[in-house]
Amino acid sequence: MRVSKEKAAENRVALLQAASRLFRQRGIDGVGVADIAKEAGLTHGALYAHFPSKDALAAEAFSHGFAGNLANIREWAGNRHPSFEEYLDGYLSPRMRDMLETGCPMAASASEVGRQDAAVSASFAHAFEAMAALLEDALEKTIPADERRRLAVAAAAAEIGAIAVSRAVAKSDPALSEEVLEAVRAAFAAILGAGTPEAG
Amino acid sequence: MRVSKEKAAENRVALLQAASRLFRQRGIDGVGVADIAKEAGLTHGALYAHFPSKDALAAEAFSHGFAGNLANIREWAGNRHPSFEEYLDGYLSPRMRDMLETGCPMAASASEVGRQDAAVSASFAHAFEAMAALLEDALEKTIPADERRRLAVAAAAAEIGAIAVSRAVAKSDPALSEEVLEAVRAAFAAILGAGTPEAG
Repeated sequence: MRVSKEKAAENRVALLQAASRLFRQRGIDGVGVADIAKEAGLTHGALYAHFPSKDALAAEAFSHGFAGNLANIREWAGNRHPSFEEYLDGYLSPRMRDMLETGCPMAASASEVGRQDAAVSASFAHAFEAMAALLEDALEKTIPADERRRLAVAAAAAEIGAIAVSRAVAKSDPALSEEVLEAVRAAFAAILGAGTPEAG
Repeated sequence: MRVSKEKAAENRVALLQAASRLFRQRGIDGVGVADIAKEAGLTHGALYAHFPSKDALAAEAFSHGFAGNLANIREWAGNRHPSFEEYLDGYLSPRMRDMLETGCPMAASASEVGRQDAAVSASFAHAFEAMAALLEDALEKTIPADERRRLAVAAAAAEIGAIAVSRAVAKSDPALSEEVLEAVRAAFAAILGAGTPEAG
């Protein structure tokens, strides 16, 4: 069955949205292409007309999901210039931990992406760089540039780890789950309190 | 077929070792019980005689793998009392990043464990507490006790995140992969340099 250009574009977005949601919810290895096609209301064949492989779909779905989250962050920031601490407080919250399907795709798939192909790795790397750039830009310009970059990269990795760990222990030890989020926030607050001449 | 008590115990260990290795290598959702039985040289039925479900096997395999790693760390430490920085340097290394099958099970499965049942979550929480305790014990006693605990919990989460991210980007951006490890090491060195009266 031939579909119009508009319909094809619509189907493509439906597939990316379904894939992005399901991969976060059940893991990349926990979802088959048949599940994704079904969730998007399309056939297996329609999926392969858009994406030659599950890896190709995973790479695009990852970028699609992250772009959506980045747009939400930009909307939240509005005309303000949120501080580094505000970004950390926003990310390292029980709300973000409990938002699996629509939360950060890096935290949802961190330990799985190393097992996927180079295209998925590249999508993850682009998303990570975007997150690090947001954090770097939020740091006081009185901090030397190389230190800002280092702190931003460390905070981005620590945030992803904290959300993953916080989710991992949530079913058995809710207190530890909250403690992990709080400890990572406090650790970076301590660095900034010590490192910036204005603060502390 | 009846097997002797000794043989049954041996089979159990073979299953745990195979499961622990395969779960790290391919992910918990990426491996079926049939693969694990095969890898251990046993039948599907033999596996179910020891573990009632894949979740039960995953929880025990996780603890089994972590206990092995902890024994290696204790052997490495010997009679010394390694510093917090030595633990971080050892963990946040390209060698640890590249050791998937025998490396830290928390880093290998961080984002997957939140999707498993409470028994797997409890195994993860126990391993995390053991890692945090090691780090806490390595901190100078001049740091107040609550701050030691907070730093240790933050560092453990950040380490797990750094290894997962470093693996995720390795196939597409090797320089970023190394930078992440270095940035997290530097961030905690900065906290200690600022926080302990003897240092920095």
